[in-house]
Amino acid sequence: MNLQEGERLDFIAGTPLKVIQSSQVFSFSIDAVLLGRFVSVPIQKGKILDLCTGNGVIPLVLTGRSKADIVGVEIQPRLVDMAKRTVTLNDSANEINIVEADINDMPDNIQKSSFDVVTCNPPYFQTVTDEEKNKNEHLAIARHEIYLILEDVVRVSSQYVKQKGKVAIVHRPERLTDIMTYMRMHRIEPKRIQFVHPIEEKDANMVLVEGIKDGKPGVVCLRPLVVYNDKGEYTKAFREVYEGK
Amino acid sequence: MNLQEGERLDFIAGTPLKVIQSSQVFSFSIDAVLLGRFVSVPIQKGKILDLCTGNGVIPLVLTGRSKADIVGVEIQPRLVDMAKRTVTLNDSANEINIVEADINDMPDNIQKSSFDVVTCNPPYFQTVTDEEKNKNEHLAIARHEIYLILEDVVRVSSQYVKQKGKVAIVHRPERLTDIMTYMRMHRIEPKRIQFVHPIEEKDANMVLVEGIKDGKPGVVCLRPLVVYNDKGEYTKAFREVYEGK
Repeated sequence: MNLQEGERLDFIAGTPLKVIQSSQVFSFSIDAVLLGRFVSVPIQKGKILDLCTGNGVIPLVLTGRSKADIVGVEIQPRLVDMAKRTVTLNDSANEINIVEADINDMPDNIQKSSFDVVTCNPPYFQTVTDEEKNKNEHLAIARHEIYLILEDVVRVSSQYVKQKGKVAIVHRPERLTDIMTYMRMHRIEPKRIQFVHPIEEKDANMVLVEGIKDGKPGVVCLRPLVVYNDKGEYTKAFREVYEGK
Repeated sequence: MNLQEGERLDFIAGTPLKVIQSSQVFSFSIDAVLLGRFVSVPIQKGKILDLCTGNGVIPLVLTGRSKADIVGVEIQPRLVDMAKRTVTLNDSANEINIVEADINDMPDNIQKSSFDVVTCNPPYFQTVTDEEKNKNEHLAIARHEIYLILEDVVRVSSQYVKQKGKVAIVHRPERLTDIMTYMRMHRIEPKRIQFVHPIEEKDANMVLVEGIKDGKPGVVCLRPLVVYNDKGEYTKAFREVYEGK
């Protein structure tokens, strides 16, 4: 196991899974872990595609829930390298295949209409200043809609998921209208939504949405997750999901 | 004050406002009251339109929050009569004008693009059986999409609201995708969403959505309202909204 300069090893909460991270390149947030726990997955077999996989956290979380074959697609070579080493480190090379690609120009060996589930924790921000881009291009690409926009994520998810397969996305709540309208536009019918609030009294700062390709209209709005209680500790309900406790 | 057979007088919680109701014709639910408290209103002056006003509960709630002129539109003559008597009973005839009309065929004296705010607590259910319709036509019309569908509500709201005016709708969460896509389709950009959960652990059973005509994209997801605590009492947060306490 060789860590490169600036890299560190972090555990995914509540699991023995280790992830190679770097604050200068990419480190996962709770968003990715929550999506990995939220999405409905086939348990015994199947195929899962994770777009914008970063250092591969969502595929890793999913190995704890599913025996499916998982493909993670990432555009940044530096992150692909981290993700591949993370997969090796966790002995997950049989389950996870990390592929370097632009989701808008997917390689032919990733088959359309073949995945049971597509997940994505995309870049959240629509604009980026030159300053942000110059300061740290790795972080800028991971956080901002530079190489893709939200509609690309939904369109590509819809192309690669099977009929009646599931597409799950985590994003900022302010984009909810975009997510829902793009989903319907691309034949992914939203079926389950969950909001995450930092504390009970505050507006949501994260939303998880799962849709079904050509599903019937009708969405269920799950109880929200509240991250912190008034003592600043994780709430019991949040720990149950985030740490599997 | 003359009540007709089967009618009763109910108070709106936390107010001195009285409403003529009848379980055989129409009685308001907390949905209407919550919408009346949720929607952003002009305080000193302006014009508000309430579609599908029923017995006029939303206009009545709004008189406690705004000095605007309020027009309530209702298709059922029996309900128009109840709403008018309710308005008189509360000495609100200077503020509220109840109009008998089909929202899909609005009278010419209600001007398009003239309202600061349009509200609607529409019929929730998409289909109705002949049995339901025959058993009680009043309730069937109030609850089911017989004379209008959800898209009509959004389209008509958009026609009657001013540029940058607000449109607020309460509905079942399962229709959220419809609400958001119809709103955007008809140039109402969703801006505020709030879910209502019967108890903390359960999925939402109500959603309040407010949009702005030609508003900028970006929606805020407010803290959810939980109606009952684990003792079966209204929660403090719910009472603050529902009863103004």
